Amino acid sequence: MDVQNLFWLGLLGAAIALLFAVFQARKVLRFSEGTDLMKKIAASIRQGANAYLKRQYTTVAKIFAVVFVILLVLRWFNLLDNWFIPFAFLTGGIYSALAGFIGMKIATSSNSRTANAAHESLNRGLNVAFSSGAVMGFTVVGLGLFDISVWFHILKYIAHFEAAQIASTMVMFGMGASFMALFARVGGGIFTKAADVGADLVGKVEAGIPEDDPRNPATIADNVGDNVGDVAGMGADLYESYVGSILATFALGATAYAGGSLTWNAMLLPLLVAVVGVVCSVIGSFLIRTRENADQRSLLSTLRKGTYTAAILAAVLAAPLTYWLMGSWGPYIAILAGLVGGCAIGYFTEYYTSDTYKPTQSLADSTETGAATTIIGGISLGMKSTAAPIIIISIAVIVAFLAAGGTLSTNSPDYAVLFNKGLYGIGIAAVGMLSTLGITLATDAYGPVADNAGGIAEMSGLGAEVRSRTDALDSLGNTTAATGKGFAIGSAALTALALLVSYVDVVNVKLDGRVLDLSLTNPAVLVGIFVGAMLTFVFAALTMSGVQRAAQSIVVEVRRQFKEIPGIMEGKADPDYASCVDLCTRGALHEMVIPSLLAIVVPVVTGLILGAESVVGLLGGVTVTGFVVAVFMSNAGGAWDNAKKYIEGGTHGGKGSECHKAAVIGDTVGDPFKDTSGPSLNILIKLCSTVSIVFSGLIVKFSIFG
Amino acid sequence: MDVQNLFWLGLLGAAIALLFAVFQARKVLRFSEGTDLMKKIAASIRQGANAYLKRQYTTVAKIFAVVFVILLVLRWFNLLDNWFIPFAFLTGGIYSALAGFIGMKIATSSNSRTANAAHESLNRGLNVAFSSGAVMGFTVVGLGLFDISVWFHILKYIAHFEAAQIASTMVMFGMGASFMALFARVGGGIFTKAADVGADLVGKVEAGIPEDDPRNPATIADNVGDNVGDVAGMGADLYESYVGSILATFALGATAYAGGSLTWNAMLLPLLVAVVGVVCSVIGSFLIRTRENADQRSLLSTLRKGTYTAAILAAVLAAPLTYWLMGSWGPYIAILAGLVGGCAIGYFTEYYTSDTYKPTQSLADSTETGAATTIIGGISLGMKSTAAPIIIISIAVIVAFLAAGGTLSTNSPDYAVLFNKGLYGIGIAAVGMLSTLGITLATDAYGPVADNAGGIAEMSGLGAEVRSRTDALDSLGNTTAATGKGFAIGSAALTALALLVSYVDVVNVKLDGRVLDLSLTNPAVLVGIFVGAMLTFVFAALTMSGVQRAAQSIVVEVRRQFKEIPGIMEGKADPDYASCVDLCTRGALHEMVIPSLLAIVVPVVTGLILGAESVVGLLGGVTVTGFVVAVFMSNAGGAWDNAKKYIEGGTHGGKGSECHKAAVIGDTVGDPFKDTSGPSLNILIKLCSTVSIVFSGLIVKFSIFG
Repeated sequence: MDVQNLFWLGLLGAAIALLFAVFQARKVLRFSEGTDLMKKIAASIRQGANAYLKRQYTTVAKIFAVVFVILLVLRWFNLLDNWFIPFAFLTGGIYSALAGFIGMKIATSSNSRTANAAHESLNRGLNVAFSSGAVMGFTVVGLGLFDISVWFHILKYIAHFEAAQIASTMVMFGMGASFMALFARVGGGIFTKAADVGADLVGKVEAGIPEDDPRNPATIADNVGDNVGDVAGMGADLYESYVGSILATFALGATAYAGGSLTWNAMLLPLLVAVVGVVCSVIGSFLIRTRENADQRSLLSTLRKGTYTAAILAAVLAAPLTYWLMGSWGPYIAILAGLVGGCAIGYFTEYYTSDTYKPTQSLADSTETGAATTIIGGISLGMKSTAAPIIIISIAVIVAFLAAGGTLSTNSPDYAVLFNKGLYGIGIAAVGMLSTLGITLATDAYGPVADNAGGIAEMSGLGAEVRSRTDALDSLGNTTAATGKGFAIGSAALTALALLVSYVDVVNVKLDGRVLDLSLTNPAVLVGIFVGAMLTFVFAALTMSGVQRAAQSIVVEVRRQFKEIPGIMEGKADPDYASCVDLCTRGALHEMVIPSLLAIVVPVVTGLILGAESVVGLLGGVTVTGFVVAVFMSNAGGAWDNAKKYIEGGTHGGKGSECHKAAVIGDTVGDPFKDTSGPSLNILIKLCSTVSIVFSGLIVKFSIFG
Repeated sequence: MDVQNLFWLGLLGAAIALLFAVFQARKVLRFSEGTDLMKKIAASIRQGANAYLKRQYTTVAKIFAVVFVILLVLRWFNLLDNWFIPFAFLTGGIYSALAGFIGMKIATSSNSRTANAAHESLNRGLNVAFSSGAVMGFTVVGLGLFDISVWFHILKYIAHFEAAQIASTMVMFGMGASFMALFARVGGGIFTKAADVGADLVGKVEAGIPEDDPRNPATIADNVGDNVGDVAGMGADLYESYVGSILATFALGATAYAGGSLTWNAMLLPLLVAVVGVVCSVIGSFLIRTRENADQRSLLSTLRKGTYTAAILAAVLAAPLTYWLMGSWGPYIAILAGLVGGCAIGYFTEYYTSDTYKPTQSLADSTETGAATTIIGGISLGMKSTAAPIIIISIAVIVAFLAAGGTLSTNSPDYAVLFNKGLYGIGIAAVGMLSTLGITLATDAYGPVADNAGGIAEMSGLGAEVRSRTDALDSLGNTTAATGKGFAIGSAALTALALLVSYVDVVNVKLDGRVLDLSLTNPAVLVGIFVGAMLTFVFAALTMSGVQRAAQSIVVEVRRQFKEIPGIMEGKADPDYASCVDLCTRGALHEMVIPSLLAIVVPVVTGLILGAESVVGLLGGVTVTGFVVAVFMSNAGGAWDNAKKYIEGGTHGGKGSECHKAAVIGDTVGDPFKDTSGPSLNILIKLCSTVSIVFSGLIVKFSIFG
């Protein structure tokens, strides 16, 4: 059967996902927004978030315009393969932004509804929050499939490209999505943590008022931050992961099965695995229903039932699909390796960051000797926690590679051919890991909605019971989010490796007979690895100090308001919320540009000096160190957060004790770790690859020493 | 001229260095130890340090015996090239231990003498402390040259080995030195920081007594720690760097110039560069003389004059030497690249960690908003500070490679031959960087002596003026030590790269025709890089949590003594110093074993599963991430330390202010960063290489997938 005309199934998958998102959105909007005060607060948050995104997108649009022109110029001088690439760069960015925007829209419409629903029952609260998360999850997936399918059809049926040409063109399309995602993650991450840290430092620590207290001028900014960072940033981020993994696998498939009868099959497989994942995610979502008055444990089990059912169903359905398309079980085992690896990383993420396990409990113990040992303990916990994900990724890579037909034995007569088949396995493993993204992202994205709902409950005085319900939803979200993070981080590593290999394939075509020496003994490669590691560390440093500088300005402003607005502490005068939102916006936009541009400038400059080999080294270096540092920072931050909550739950003297103070310091350090620098690194490693691929023509032609 | 009989010059260099060390030691011992109380305190410190080293060496001896037997078994099964290797493993360990032991002996004899001399004048204090550092510096260099020269003569004139055989055998000799050095650094580092952190947490923070107060039961342990960690650990560490760089260059030289007429010349060059360095260091040391009543600035300038004169002299003398031996200027430029690179890294180390520059001053500013921002600021400063050293090392690598004849153009007809010549340049650059180690180590090693002298001055009540002089010496030491650290860290990276290449050479001989695929697209290589990065992070985590656990036990013990020994706080009863020393000893010995063994187990196990390619990946991964993390941790720790001192100097409210408290927390976090984990990583990256080289026969024969 000729499968090359079956790519329209991608559009079908997109339609299913987007329709389901609309269905969930309508469901959410049927709930009431609650009291007038709640409506007013929700409106302020919505307004702040809209204002921020508008200004963020304006700033980013200017940068996109510049890059677009550069790409046109490159094409003009024949340094880009075709004219589609600059335009695909734009659409990738637009869809990525759109995914974030829609997620943010629905989140800011759901927060007060969740608070109000939680007022009635925990179960109803979950319902609203989860549906809101589902809107974002399925929008991301739907837009991704749509973008890929449309471009595929344009290139195949309008431009009449060959399979290899389609694949090598489309792998460049990831750059727009990654670039937008990086801005969204870094900008949103700086906004949210600047507001959070700033609000806590003056409000909680200096003035001694509780979190989300309406007297705190930074409290609206804090809630806006949840939406623009944790929601819009995450949406753009995972859009990029999803699209990137499929496009990289397209390219690897076209290379591995070039000239044979399976070229189209190898390209169709990742798309159909994704479509199957959409269907399974929809089915899983329908399973998330609970009895009225369910307790937290049964809520967790229903969420788990939904995600695990989707994953298992996808694993089962992928088997006949893969065998039908590829005629062997090898790629299927690679898909399984991805799925199992994602779950395993999720488990260890939870193990290291949840207070039901020993590591976070020991971290809480280390608060007994003060802030210094709390920090040392968290850093060492985070560093230790990198072992499990690395071992899992390593096993997944080797299993996927060998199962898909690759060999490590250089004596094998077909070494090169088999080798490429194996690399395809790594790509398809990443696709497998992300196939049920619709539902895993839903369980991840509902957390910030619950968090916001808690803020609204507090500010509108809904009472302790509602707050405790939203807190329960929030902490439930933290647990399920661990699995989501496992998939996100694992797939980022696999996708980055797949893109690294694609880069080599793309470059090899342009070399006119020169051979790349990618050996690790080549100083250009080694220097590249060093530069990649440096990029990771400098990027992490810049994003962290960005948060710090922006937070500092919030601290100054909040202190000013406490001093200059009379009656604010007695609740008689309203603080000026908007000025804090504005400060966060300006801080975030100011601080996001330099680190984001580094991801473009460093690979291109390195390549222009030392040649394509050094770029491969750089990609290897940034992938490995980026992955390790991302895991380290995310887990250290998560553990500090939960150690603090654990103490607030009554251990080690509870709230207000010396231990709690030490834990708050840990949590504050962990904030930019886990919500700004850590997740941004996931995007950085892929953006470096796609940038290198797009600029490969320039680098090959003009590098000085390479 | 036939140069192969000139290797006895190495013995001459060793003799000069060792005689100069004896001369300096006799000079130190002529000074008076001061009052009876000072003698008593010095004796307690000496006793504690001796007791620790004795137990440390006993523990390490057992582990060495096991590894020795394993090596014998490997040789028995023909998996090691010859019977010399197990014995050379032992001598390397013994000399490394001896270097540390002698350094510690003289340091514990100089501390009270320095305090007493500082009682008379700042200048006399410097004299004693510097001479004590010189004993260690020249002992390290002398023992290193002696070990290398003796083995060279045994292999050449008794075993009658060929050049290539000598080189490939001797490159394995580094393992013993590295292994011993790792134990010394990790064990000593845990001891010293456990004592320091433990003493500070209870003494300074809880009881509110000053540092080094005799009422603090942990104060002797703290001073013992300076000797076993900063002195004995550093001695073993730099012994290993020095020997490692020369041996790696031997191996690279023998490969690059194999079969030609320059083989012996290429091997003689690193040895003679080292000998020239010894002579220049001796000359430089004689320049370190000051007028009576010199101020701190003129002391600094005399120290700088000594080290810079030695470096410039070495650079000048190396020129004719290199041209005479190699017949071209290429390798000389590589040596220069090393020397200049070392100085440049030293400059940036000082820039990021000294309170006369902006980064540390800004860090002090960030204490204004509390401990959390202090920590974030320090971590981001440390991460940012990795950029300069990486760029410098990258430039040094590329310049050395190209200057020594290497090419990055794979089209070149002699690519492989030129490539090897270029790699030799990287090795010789490392030797150049370390050639004047005698004097740079002297300026580094005198710091802990001054620190100890301060402790003795405090405990024996010598008065504020003496204390302020020893503090001045100490802070002077911090400044000059920055340069020393630059050389140590830069040479570690270059040596590790040289050893990585040597590993590939060694393996290639054993492959029986199979070709290594060291390309970065090979999953085995990529997984290796991941595992290398993991090893770095887990190692850093374990050493840090080792400090934390050991410190915790000190905290408990000090609290117990304060409670149970009546009159201790009034100075009427003596605290039980010995029990704290004993606890630190047991803690350090207990915590040092696992991380140190990881360096052997992880490369061997990885290789046995995935083959030699994965080991090369691992070496690349651990070298790059180890280097970056080491720079990050050392500089963050140094900056926290100096930010605290800057505040103690009267800024931001000075001692006792809220800012100072935040800075103390930063400093406490920084302690294990800069004195335990950071410097140990330098050794780890080289130990992994030498271990891999020694076990290469086993790995090539028995790996499962490779």
